[in-house]
Amino acid sequence: MFQRVALIGIGLIGSSISHALRRRGLAGSIVGSAKSEATRATALRLGLVERAYASPADAVEGADLVVLCVPLGVYGEIVREIAPHLAPGAILTDVGSVKGAAIRDVAPHVPPGVHFIPGHPIAGTEHSGPEAGFAELFDNRWCVLTPPEGADPRAVARLQRLWQALGSNVELMGAEHHDLVLAITSHVPHLIAYNIVNTAAHLERVTDSEVIKFSAGGFRDFTRIASSDPTMWRDVFLNNKEAVLEMLGRFSEDLTALQRAIRYGDGRTLFELFSAARTVRRGIIQAGQDTAAPDFGRQQAKASAAESSTQP
Amino acid sequence: MFQRVALIGIGLIGSSISHALRRRGLAGSIVGSAKSEATRATALRLGLVERAYASPADAVEGADLVVLCVPLGVYGEIVREIAPHLAPGAILTDVGSVKGAAIRDVAPHVPPGVHFIPGHPIAGTEHSGPEAGFAELFDNRWCVLTPPEGADPRAVARLQRLWQALGSNVELMGAEHHDLVLAITSHVPHLIAYNIVNTAAHLERVTDSEVIKFSAGGFRDFTRIASSDPTMWRDVFLNNKEAVLEMLGRFSEDLTALQRAIRYGDGRTLFELFSAARTVRRGIIQAGQDTAAPDFGRQQAKASAAESSTQP
Repeated sequence: MFQRVALIGIGLIGSSISHALRRRGLAGSIVGSAKSEATRATALRLGLVERAYASPADAVEGADLVVLCVPLGVYGEIVREIAPHLAPGAILTDVGSVKGAAIRDVAPHVPPGVHFIPGHPIAGTEHSGPEAGFAELFDNRWCVLTPPEGADPRAVARLQRLWQALGSNVELMGAEHHDLVLAITSHVPHLIAYNIVNTAAHLERVTDSEVIKFSAGGFRDFTRIASSDPTMWRDVFLNNKEAVLEMLGRFSEDLTALQRAIRYGDGRTLFELFSAARTVRRGIIQAGQDTAAPDFGRQQAKASAAESSTQP
Repeated sequence: MFQRVALIGIGLIGSSISHALRRRGLAGSIVGSAKSEATRATALRLGLVERAYASPADAVEGADLVVLCVPLGVYGEIVREIAPHLAPGAILTDVGSVKGAAIRDVAPHVPPGVHFIPGHPIAGTEHSGPEAGFAELFDNRWCVLTPPEGADPRAVARLQRLWQALGSNVELMGAEHHDLVLAITSHVPHLIAYNIVNTAAHLERVTDSEVIKFSAGGFRDFTRIASSDPTMWRDVFLNNKEAVLEMLGRFSEDLTALQRAIRYGDGRTLFELFSAARTVRRGIIQAGQDTAAPDFGRQQAKASAAESSTQP
């Protein structure tokens, strides 16, 4: 589908795109750039890219698809660097979690004849780096594209077909709406996960060791997303301030109401609200966005870990 | 280890205790009681109990171990009913998530010669009912016992050995401390999970369908524990009010600080706090309390679900 794909940044998402491209033979060649020498060496060793460059400008030479897979905070700097080297007709896209900021920082620098179409695959794990990627990451997940007004429909359609070939469903929407939706489905969940881990770590009357031992009561679920890449998440919050603050305001308002129900022993309010939550979970499982296996299938995960560790 | 075990309530925990007892042959016979006719029929069909009674008083006759596996809110009523029928020397225990309330509601009714030793296995899944149980639920999890002052050390040791034989590690602590620890490791995590699901369900500008489709961004992790049994959780919050309100107060205070860091663009505070959270996750994995598989091993869970669905 593309002659030469340039991945700017080869972490979890960049490496997964490479695996998924190769799985279906979607790219003539894949090259990439990474700031760190270690990442470049790993990417070459794993065959994620044929060439690994220190400079993003070198990586994009002759590429008909360029994918920014770096934290949002460095978009501006990188785009200023690569802009003069982008091939005419190339598609420039990204995978960042805030589309308004992506457009703000990238669009002004894109030369005429290059198609900038922001994208966001709603997929990931808590692991980071080039070794964390795998071909199935995007399977049955959604990828949102937020083409700016006036974007070339053929370029949009081409990028849409690419994401479908990588395994995703694709939805188009405006950048502002994307950022609002992601604030509630991703950004605020991460923030409250980070927050409760932090609260738990600073208690005087409960030790860290107790928090760890008894984490199977629910706490451990939060620690997974709270161990996601800190740089990436810092940049998300700095760049989606308004939507996150709006959703946080609502979350806190609702939490205050729940707290009040507990204080005044209002069991009926608690019961009704708790019952309603089951419906949402069912919807997510029916939509294929989570496993129905109890406990996220942790038992199976443990069992297969045990199996593979007993193999020679 | 016991001649006759009576399970009062045969849901996720009661049925898992039955499976784990049978796995190691720890009980001469297992009987149970359940309010619902359907639950009794299922429990008999699955061989969870040899006899299923509608009345808890009938179930406890002649039992040397009685385990309350019902929501906290009905402890008082059930114990008043079974007290005259408890066998001398029997151990009476429970599995509830608030030990202060268990002692408050149960201890006054326990006849002399019966050993009341509250317990709490820190284990579960989001599923409920007699079909949800499995023998491995308690393996490598912690079970906390909170023996009241003056409890018979031999009875405590016997119950401790039982939980170890069921697969658990056992820790003894005071009821008040247990309730504080569980407030942060279990109760507040459930409350904020319920809360964000509720917040997401009531947005005007984001549809329920969008929340579901894009839940893989983090939100879906919260829906798992938010689909736990609503009656059980209502009773937890009504019965651990002080500790939950204290932990909620701290959580909200910390969240306000994070919100402020976002508002003022304080990236350094965000980065430091996000980085610290990874350490806690590592501790939980090293302690064997969660899987190291990315995404809780959801990929494996999907793969084995696919395998089993293709089997005849």
